[in-house]
Amino acid sequence: MSDLVNRQVRLASRPTGWVQPENFEMADEAVAEPADGEILVRNIFMSVDPYMRGRMNDAKSYVPPFQIGKVLQAGVVGQVIASRHDDFAEGDYVSGMLGWEKFSISNGEGLHKVINTDVPLSWYLGILGMPGMTAWVGLTEIAGLKEGESVFVSAASGAVGSVVGQIAKIYNCHVAGCAGSDEKLEILKSEFGYDEAFNYKTSKSIPASIAAACPEGIDVNFENVGGDIFEAAMWNMRPFGRIALCGMIANYNDEEQQPGPRGMMAIIGKRLTIRGFIVSDHPKACGEFVNKAAGWIAEGKLKYRETIAEGIDNAPAAFIDMLNGRNIGKQIIRLDDD
Amino acid sequence: MSDLVNRQVRLASRPTGWVQPENFEMADEAVAEPADGEILVRNIFMSVDPYMRGRMNDAKSYVPPFQIGKVLQAGVVGQVIASRHDDFAEGDYVSGMLGWEKFSISNGEGLHKVINTDVPLSWYLGILGMPGMTAWVGLTEIAGLKEGESVFVSAASGAVGSVVGQIAKIYNCHVAGCAGSDEKLEILKSEFGYDEAFNYKTSKSIPASIAAACPEGIDVNFENVGGDIFEAAMWNMRPFGRIALCGMIANYNDEEQQPGPRGMMAIIGKRLTIRGFIVSDHPKACGEFVNKAAGWIAEGKLKYRETIAEGIDNAPAAFIDMLNGRNIGKQIIRLDDD
Repeated sequence: MSDLVNRQVRLASRPTGWVQPENFEMADEAVAEPADGEILVRNIFMSVDPYMRGRMNDAKSYVPPFQIGKVLQAGVVGQVIASRHDDFAEGDYVSGMLGWEKFSISNGEGLHKVINTDVPLSWYLGILGMPGMTAWVGLTEIAGLKEGESVFVSAASGAVGSVVGQIAKIYNCHVAGCAGSDEKLEILKSEFGYDEAFNYKTSKSIPASIAAACPEGIDVNFENVGGDIFEAAMWNMRPFGRIALCGMIANYNDEEQQPGPRGMMAIIGKRLTIRGFIVSDHPKACGEFVNKAAGWIAEGKLKYRETIAEGIDNAPAAFIDMLNGRNIGKQIIRLDDD
Repeated sequence: MSDLVNRQVRLASRPTGWVQPENFEMADEAVAEPADGEILVRNIFMSVDPYMRGRMNDAKSYVPPFQIGKVLQAGVVGQVIASRHDDFAEGDYVSGMLGWEKFSISNGEGLHKVINTDVPLSWYLGILGMPGMTAWVGLTEIAGLKEGESVFVSAASGAVGSVVGQIAKIYNCHVAGCAGSDEKLEILKSEFGYDEAFNYKTSKSIPASIAAACPEGIDVNFENVGGDIFEAAMWNMRPFGRIALCGMIANYNDEEQQPGPRGMMAIIGKRLTIRGFIVSDHPKACGEFVNKAAGWIAEGKLKYRETIAEGIDNAPAAFIDMLNGRNIGKQIIRLDDD
């Protein structure tokens, strides 16, 4: 494979506050030969996700931090082009955690074969991958969603939020959300079936906007954003409401710990439950979801949007755009563009 | 009954910040005759509890606010001295929500007969009443306590906290707590079986004190206090930890909503659950607890402390002292002191 060049994105420096292009560096190296028990994957699509911002800090967390000078990690869909591993054959499609790079060597750990290729391969990084599973686990395992409840979703048009809303509609719920542009609001209503949506950037009062969008209050808040939106959602919770805490993108850039929402007394008075979760703790539910989702997609009940950037060189900019909310639906980078 | 005088405590004005003696007024009135379907109760003991502070505000909550010029409500144990109600006979002992007064008229709603008089009557306002039940419901139904876990309790020597610690020890847990005086720490260790305890008023760093008291971290935080102690406990939670949010006495006097704890990102990273609760939502568990607790008391596994103030005239001062943490164990007022 020595004629193939592996172009990579490496972490050049740790960001303080917002991520900048100079936090990344591009590097080329010769593609290595797989050793015994390894495979070589030609990466086709990679995913950029909000949680990666946390891995850029040198902080103890549930996943280890990215290392300076080393290739970054990402969810990838690719094709095996050389195998010295019993479980994988040349030509197999696989998905799993590989690198921000055009080719990856893997010992197969954590890789899954992609069997059903009726849907676009990139969907295994989105609706049939971690974001879709996150929506399902948060709504069902964590929040215990029931038919007909009232659901509020922040970052509603994102990779996770757009699936949350559609699943909640399948459960005959009242579904409201917020997003950061009028174009996104339009898509939430026309494509993802949201009953109500508002633009949090132009709202004069987020608590009032949520109250208008959920006039009966909120039974389940699927929280992706944190900060003021989380606080306002908490104020609008109904008794016995559940908050599935999935992400707090509003706080990812903070150098210091920010205070939590005001009015936490309501957690007692309204008997609220706030529960944080990480999708990988729930493999059984994830497996169930992929089957259900394939059915819902076939029936037209589950729709999906992607923003696809072209080429490994554009991965840092696509990541930064996603953190700034410039994508609609799942942000993907195509790696086999040459 | 016209020869009996009913001395009452009424709400004179709503406090701003800390409760003051002038927020109360004493009043005497003739004791009324029970109408058909009513009973007259001679009140023997009454309870003052932190949640009453909230009812002094004119705010929507899970219990309606106290009314200015009207007698305040409290948990009371008393004896029926006249009955025109089929379910209650003269001489019956009863407990339930009555008034800050020496005699109460009731239609029996929410009153329970006290059958077992092997323990002091006042205990039905404490370890066998709402505070004991709160400890049990919070640990079991809300936090799902498991054998051998690490438990941290704020306001550990209070009416609820002292029972929480003892139940957790029956579950073979590591039990640590904080309290506001060295005398209380001594009682926590020598009497209630706490493994570790520290004085939050003299601690130089509450997070460090909690870390020292719970070197393996906290699986279950039984939170009575809120504010800085809640924040510090959250920072010391172990993965998959549960926080049973019972009270936030640190915030009861606030005129404005205070921010929540810093570092709420940990809720996701550590997959924490924060759950508020009100004991009255769990009548079945409460019933189970009274039976269990009677057994544990007989076996000497469950100990109990009261601070008893004498006479209805001392009720306001006893309530204010309790809010300031001057009581040890359950604060009770004896009403049949004449």
